[in-house]
Amino acid sequence: MTDEGLLSPVSASPSVAAVTGDRAVLAAILDVEAGWAAVLVAAGLAPEGTAAVVASAADPDRYDVADIAHRAQGGGNPVIPLLNDLRRHVAALDTAGLGAGKAVHTSLTSQDVLDTALMLVARKAVAALLTDLRGATNALAALAEHHAATLAVGRSLTQHSLPYTFGLRSAQWFQGLAAAGRQLAELDFPVQFGGAAGTLAAGTVLTQGTSHTPFSLADDLASQLGLAPTPAPWHTNRLAVTALGNALAATLDAAGKIATDVLFMSRPEVTEVAEPRAAGRGVSSAMPQKQNPVLSVLVRSAALQGPQLVAQLHLAAATFNDERPDAAWHLEWPALRGLLRLGLAAAGHLRELAEGLQVFPAALTRNLGLAGPLLLAEGVSAAVAPLLSERAGRSGKDQLQDVVDQTLAVPAEDQGVTYQRLLRTAVPQELLSDDRLADLLDPANYVGQAAEIARRILAAYPEFTHARHGSADPRQNGATHG
Amino acid sequence: MTDEGLLSPVSASPSVAAVTGDRAVLAAILDVEAGWAAVLVAAGLAPEGTAAVVASAADPDRYDVADIAHRAQGGGNPVIPLLNDLRRHVAALDTAGLGAGKAVHTSLTSQDVLDTALMLVARKAVAALLTDLRGATNALAALAEHHAATLAVGRSLTQHSLPYTFGLRSAQWFQGLAAAGRQLAELDFPVQFGGAAGTLAAGTVLTQGTSHTPFSLADDLASQLGLAPTPAPWHTNRLAVTALGNALAATLDAAGKIATDVLFMSRPEVTEVAEPRAAGRGVSSAMPQKQNPVLSVLVRSAALQGPQLVAQLHLAAATFNDERPDAAWHLEWPALRGLLRLGLAAAGHLRELAEGLQVFPAALTRNLGLAGPLLLAEGVSAAVAPLLSERAGRSGKDQLQDVVDQTLAVPAEDQGVTYQRLLRTAVPQELLSDDRLADLLDPANYVGQAAEIARRILAAYPEFTHARHGSADPRQNGATHG
Amino acid sequence: MTDEGLLSPVSASPSVAAVTGDRAVLAAILDVEAGWAAVLVAAGLAPEGTAAVVASAADPDRYDVADIAHRAQGGGNPVIPLLNDLRRHVAALDTAGLGAGKAVHTSLTSQDVLDTALMLVARKAVAALLTDLRGATNALAALAEHHAATLAVGRSLTQHSLPYTFGLRSAQWFQGLAAAGRQLAELDFPVQFGGAAGTLAAGTVLTQGTSHTPFSLADDLASQLGLAPTPAPWHTNRLAVTALGNALAATLDAAGKIATDVLFMSRPEVTEVAEPRAAGRGVSSAMPQKQNPVLSVLVRSAALQGPQLVAQLHLAAATFNDERPDAAWHLEWPALRGLLRLGLAAAGHLRELAEGLQVFPAALTRNLGLAGPLLLAEGVSAAVAPLLSERAGRSGKDQLQDVVDQTLAVPAEDQGVTYQRLLRTAVPQELLSDDRLADLLDPANYVGQAAEIARRILAAYPEFTHARHGSADPRQNGATHG
Amino acid sequence: MTDEGLLSPVSASPSVAAVTGDRAVLAAILDVEAGWAAVLVAAGLAPEGTAAVVASAADPDRYDVADIAHRAQGGGNPVIPLLNDLRRHVAALDTAGLGAGKAVHTSLTSQDVLDTALMLVARKAVAALLTDLRGATNALAALAEHHAATLAVGRSLTQHSLPYTFGLRSAQWFQGLAAAGRQLAELDFPVQFGGAAGTLAAGTVLTQGTSHTPFSLADDLASQLGLAPTPAPWHTNRLAVTALGNALAATLDAAGKIATDVLFMSRPEVTEVAEPRAAGRGVSSAMPQKQNPVLSVLVRSAALQGPQLVAQLHLAAATFNDERPDAAWHLEWPALRGLLRLGLAAAGHLRELAEGLQVFPAALTRNLGLAGPLLLAEGVSAAVAPLLSERAGRSGKDQLQDVVDQTLAVPAEDQGVTYQRLLRTAVPQELLSDDRLADLLDPANYVGQAAEIARRILAAYPEFTHARHGSADPRQNGATHG
Repeated sequence: MTDEGLLSPVSASPSVAAVTGDRAVLAAILDVEAGWAAVLVAAGLAPEGTAAVVASAADPDRYDVADIAHRAQGGGNPVIPLLNDLRRHVAALDTAGLGAGKAVHTSLTSQDVLDTALMLVARKAVAALLTDLRGATNALAALAEHHAATLAVGRSLTQHSLPYTFGLRSAQWFQGLAAAGRQLAELDFPVQFGGAAGTLAAGTVLTQGTSHTPFSLADDLASQLGLAPTPAPWHTNRLAVTALGNALAATLDAAGKIATDVLFMSRPEVTEVAEPRAAGRGVSSAMPQKQNPVLSVLVRSAALQGPQLVAQLHLAAATFNDERPDAAWHLEWPALRGLLRLGLAAAGHLRELAEGLQVFPAALTRNLGLAGPLLLAEGVSAAVAPLLSERAGRSGKDQLQDVVDQTLAVPAEDQGVTYQRLLRTAVPQELLSDDRLADLLDPANYVGQAAEIARRILAAYPEFTHARHGSADPRQNGATHG
Repeated sequence: MTDEGLLSPVSASPSVAAVTGDRAVLAAILDVEAGWAAVLVAAGLAPEGTAAVVASAADPDRYDVADIAHRAQGGGNPVIPLLNDLRRHVAALDTAGLGAGKAVHTSLTSQDVLDTALMLVARKAVAALLTDLRGATNALAALAEHHAATLAVGRSLTQHSLPYTFGLRSAQWFQGLAAAGRQLAELDFPVQFGGAAGTLAAGTVLTQGTSHTPFSLADDLASQLGLAPTPAPWHTNRLAVTALGNALAATLDAAGKIATDVLFMSRPEVTEVAEPRAAGRGVSSAMPQKQNPVLSVLVRSAALQGPQLVAQLHLAAATFNDERPDAAWHLEWPALRGLLRLGLAAAGHLRELAEGLQVFPAALTRNLGLAGPLLLAEGVSAAVAPLLSERAGRSGKDQLQDVVDQTLAVPAEDQGVTYQRLLRTAVPQELLSDDRLADLLDPANYVGQAAEIARRILAAYPEFTHARHGSADPRQNGATHG
Repeated sequence: MTDEGLLSPVSASPSVAAVTGDRAVLAAILDVEAGWAAVLVAAGLAPEGTAAVVASAADPDRYDVADIAHRAQGGGNPVIPLLNDLRRHVAALDTAGLGAGKAVHTSLTSQDVLDTALMLVARKAVAALLTDLRGATNALAALAEHHAATLAVGRSLTQHSLPYTFGLRSAQWFQGLAAAGRQLAELDFPVQFGGAAGTLAAGTVLTQGTSHTPFSLADDLASQLGLAPTPAPWHTNRLAVTALGNALAATLDAAGKIATDVLFMSRPEVTEVAEPRAAGRGVSSAMPQKQNPVLSVLVRSAALQGPQLVAQLHLAAATFNDERPDAAWHLEWPALRGLLRLGLAAAGHLRELAEGLQVFPAALTRNLGLAGPLLLAEGVSAAVAPLLSERAGRSGKDQLQDVVDQTLAVPAEDQGVTYQRLLRTAVPQELLSDDRLADLLDPANYVGQAAEIARRILAAYPEFTHARHGSADPRQNGATHG
Repeated sequence: MTDEGLLSPVSASPSVAAVTGDRAVLAAILDVEAGWAAVLVAAGLAPEGTAAVVASAADPDRYDVADIAHRAQGGGNPVIPLLNDLRRHVAALDTAGLGAGKAVHTSLTSQDVLDTALMLVARKAVAALLTDLRGATNALAALAEHHAATLAVGRSLTQHSLPYTFGLRSAQWFQGLAAAGRQLAELDFPVQFGGAAGTLAAGTVLTQGTSHTPFSLADDLASQLGLAPTPAPWHTNRLAVTALGNALAATLDAAGKIATDVLFMSRPEVTEVAEPRAAGRGVSSAMPQKQNPVLSVLVRSAALQGPQLVAQLHLAAATFNDERPDAAWHLEWPALRGLLRLGLAAAGHLRELAEGLQVFPAALTRNLGLAGPLLLAEGVSAAVAPLLSERAGRSGKDQLQDVVDQTLAVPAEDQGVTYQRLLRTAVPQELLSDDRLADLLDPANYVGQAAEIARRILAAYPEFTHARHGSADPRQNGATHG
């Protein structure tokens, strides 16, 4: 027993393992070999009946993953020992003596099979990931709409900057995920077929004198497996892999950004949001009263692994020497699988987080109030400076800056009152009525285009809000808390 | 004096510095501020004449980069001290008393300016990079066509695999660069405008009561600077940056793959290619007879830095907390600039390498011959096995494998003769004539679709071969050597 | 003009540039060549007077760094063009016709010079770093002692765990820096001398028939330059470089941990600490009222670059092929310099931060109180459970857990009162007096060994508290705030 | 089934899994809990008999790893669900009603247990690694001695530099491994005990009124488990982890350097060495004649993963916020285990490689001869220049450089003869006899201190050659081939 995820809680679940585990990889390798047999039969290059025999032999239950993994040390890749076993099963099942074994791996090379199989694994994992991601984006879109006017404070370099809305924050979270998701959804998962050296030499011999070519067989295989056709083998150029890895890392980035924000906002000193509760979640081994924001912790722990994994894919690509390299290819496999696994796991947790996020408007308001009206100094200056005439060589803007500076000199707890008093003194009633001044000091009047920005963001990614519009009642997620 | 490239020879050139140096960054920041003034004037939001004053004040020669960099420690970014200086210059130049200073940075925040400025720097650096990259791809395309039939040996895990062609190798090198180049060419370089917290609050006040909105101003700024418009601020979502970084890293990957292959192929034991000679290049401090393949060394040294830099961009994106983060943004700048610089430098060296690469067909042939006819065992088996009837329970394929195994048991230098003798013995003349056998053992007959694959690859990226077709005489580069 | 630090505010200062800039590297290379001439003269292998001529020629002011950097593209390293210039200067200065030029670089190779020069740069940069680091550790040690009993709340996965002290937090910050600093202080900075291929062949010829050997010359050079002697050339084994890089990264790690904590603790919702104020620090381009914790931001921005840079050093080491590699060596230079630069810069900022950190005990107490007495549930259970007899099949521990569970079911703001009431009900007065219960619910009584742990930590690193004991008045830094 | 190593052939073996697999981690966690119970009993803090009950309950066979891993999502770490199961088993086994359950985890926190358990796993994995590493260093030391005089060519930037010896290359390989191994052997594996917040609060209550303290219990636990005691908890300072990770990465670096060299030297164009043959090793799925150097490929694939993993450990350390962090801790586990696993696997393969490496002196000589006598130009110049008087303003050194330059102008295949002829012309017989000239052109006379350097290297690491001297016959490994 090697690795069941004991040291990677974020991804230790049966649903993640089903798509990214060794068994899924093994099954994909077998799918490629079985698909190839079907292609050959359809092209008249292997006897009728062969495809069924190979398909039956390619049942993953017939194989011992651990044993194949161990034997993979001999040739350096798992396809070689797997083929031995597959051929044995085919021979045993070929009771009609079709010679089905001849169709197995004919004119392929290990890299054809493994590259194609990993693209199969990736396509399925990305599809599952996108399902969860859309769950998360739908929930965030609902939060963005529901909280379009929920005031909050904007933060910059840890300090309060200006009034903000929780709706816009949700929309920006949405934008991060949706942009990454669109990148993922637009990826090609290309088939690989080049033969031993990438010249399609064996495939050329195989198709000689027929109406087929190695290129048409490659297209047939792509179609058989639901992968993208390619004009030519890409065995030495790994852009399809790095692009996939980068899109997964970008998804983890967006997830990490959200998790980091939630971790802060759910701190006891902040309490603006809380993770959804669930039985057994967030517990501590020593402190029974603790409720840890464990979904966010898990998501963040995944996100912080993305950079190293995408670096490994680029390192592989940059050192991919010769027609097949002397280590670079091997370097890709764990990194690509790692990104698929973490991306899928993070999307699942994030969906749960977004769908159940508890939002506490009262706390958002409380924190917005911490800085008091000084937070509005930028807007006050813009609105009031033009009203003031120069005094003692100081422009209107200067005079208002003086008010700010004098305010900052008093203790923090007195700054709110002081600012208002000094401001009232500096700006005569006849230029600015008390009502208008109160308006200027109301943070709700200084959120600019928050709602419109959020609306534009949601509109820019309709495919990531679509499902919601079929069913969604924003009250069904945590959007109405507080 | 901080860094003139003494420890980064790959990028230490005036042409690279002109596009990516601190002065280029400073100029871009000033361009953004000047562009913004022009936008405001055009929108009637600043007095006529303001744009000219700001543009004049924004002359980079007026600024002391080192001093600004040092003062940037105060606020953590270079825009703040630069603005102080810019406002001072504007005030001094505003001899007409237009109040031009009011247009400077109005309703912008540092991040708006720096994000936009770095996109400007990136757009120009990528354009320069693509020029050099197209030089390289043109040269590689010419090599691919010229050497379409030049035999070589394919290599896999360091060992000889099958006959190959130098043309296909060149075409695959081309494919790597062209695919990465296409990714670069399709990038958006988006403008950033969100204001202090990302709500466009100040911009809203600024445009109140006019026919403009902060969104229309942002579009105007994009148009003014030649950047892409965006539906909404993206200050917290760094996909535009990671996508750019990833495309640059992919370019470095492709460059690194080529450099690594050239480094091997130009070794004294291999001598299949040589770098172009130039005065002072490839010299050694101790050994006057040495000619080092320094272009490839430099390119490879750039390529191996890409993974870490792209990791840093993802790390920034994944930890981009709040509305502006507490370090992540700062983390991006050196990594993005590093990728631009290395990408541009590598493309330049690679172009020179590709345009002047010396190819030695005789050496390619000599190395192809090292493995002798055994290299053709795959093709022999495919062609001959069906001709043989079963003997002593051994299929035709088995019998041919026996020949291979027996051959491998003799010393390497005797394997060629032995293989041919054993093969002749195993396959009767009546089944396979001597002529046909000789054909099967001629590597030129077992390169599969090498030429067609190369043709398909070139055809798939017409924008990366186009320039060549205007002018190209393949003999003008090193393609005709040997 | 290439790079004055405009995009790296953390390290853009004259003092950092003086130790790590290109000029410092150039000077170190010249120091090595001049040192070598001195060694040869002392050994009688070069004419008297030679050393003085070379030393004069090795004045950095004679050299144009940018030009040398650009010419380094020819051979791939800066030593080669520098030597051309050095030899020219030596010839011009050798007015006595000593033949001083012969001593320049004799029997050395570029790698000998550059490896040794970078070790010189590193030794000086690390010494400067340690000075600042000791400033920081002294200040933290003072905080640890001064706040030995200042209550705070411990935090785990963002949530409150148990009572803590600010003194222990300071001591743990100290421990991180001191442990990394000790690692740095114990490093060897070895001289490199192997000659062109690492066999000392030229050095062997040079010393033939003398009482010297290449090994003794290498030891002399080490002694001349203040570096460590080595038993043998280490040109292909980069452990000295990765160990140095790792110790620098560990320093950045410890700095990053502190900065991250300070960034949180100085947030407006937390206000437990504040950075020292200084003119022009922490300003914003848009919001005049903001005070950003910019020292911590800068330190954290440095710390998050460490992982990628140390990865690059290991990548270089792992791909260091042949007797001198085809890119790996070049890969080291910018990464090593980057770590030195960021480590030095971070130590400087951290010292300023630690020496001036403002601590607010009232806020620490306020935040400790947020969780109310539930925070003490672990201690209550340990103390009280043994007093209770089993009731209805529930052990004492179970009964107390029931109290916690019932408490958690009421709104957060009522939990404090509820917990005390339920606890009083569950535990009869005769088993536990009101006074004893009050003691158990006083967080000051549940900080365990906080003070003793802090004391042990300081005692474990005497060399990092030593300077303080000469002069230190804890009130001279920010330790007495609040 | 999650991961049996199908995508990581380098480490997919039962022996590696036994030390680093999930089951080994689970067993280590149980060992810590059982060890703690033993410590408490010995200290009189738990009833006699408790330790035996807990030890029996801590039998790994009682636990379902996959289930625990899955449940670890609830609290974010595997200790929490494991404790539930452990307590259940203890209760069931505590048939005497000792209350053994109370000793389980008393006053510990999850991090205490997991940090300590991973140090246990690390200590065992490093011990196993060092055994294999010593096997490899012994074999390399034998090669260094056996081939002390076996001529080879030194290579620099891929080109031939100077004569070298295979013995010195082996010694340098040895040095890389031995230096890294020494670093590993000197590591501390510290126990962790801090309690919930790192104050030892519960431990203080536990030991109140006894002769024990939490510190003494921590020392007892260290002693019980064979770990290093520590003066204080180190839960927030991860230098012990990064130092361990760095030493493992350094081991992988040294291994990667060797593998990269072997991969080149065993290429068909070079054939200086060959990997040991073994049944089923080096096979290809498509080409039956191929023999891939798969040990080196696997080792290199491990080595190139080291940089990213060590980066991840530093990233964790640099972001280790609060008293227990919000993701950083979780980030460490897979990275640390990855390094242990790859290090152990690489050492095993490397041992096999070193013990069975086939060396071909004839090929070494052939390749040395490729550059002809020009390779000796450095030595010729050093020896001959002083004999020549100035002619036409050209010094002796200049005259010899002219000979080299003229030689380089003729075709490569003629350079050997040309160089000798021009040299003979330039240096009169009376100054240099034919015999002396022949000596100068014999590469065997220009290997400098190769043998002495090798001797010094072996002598510097006696603990890595020691085992060999008991038994070793250098002929028992591949040292005598060729």
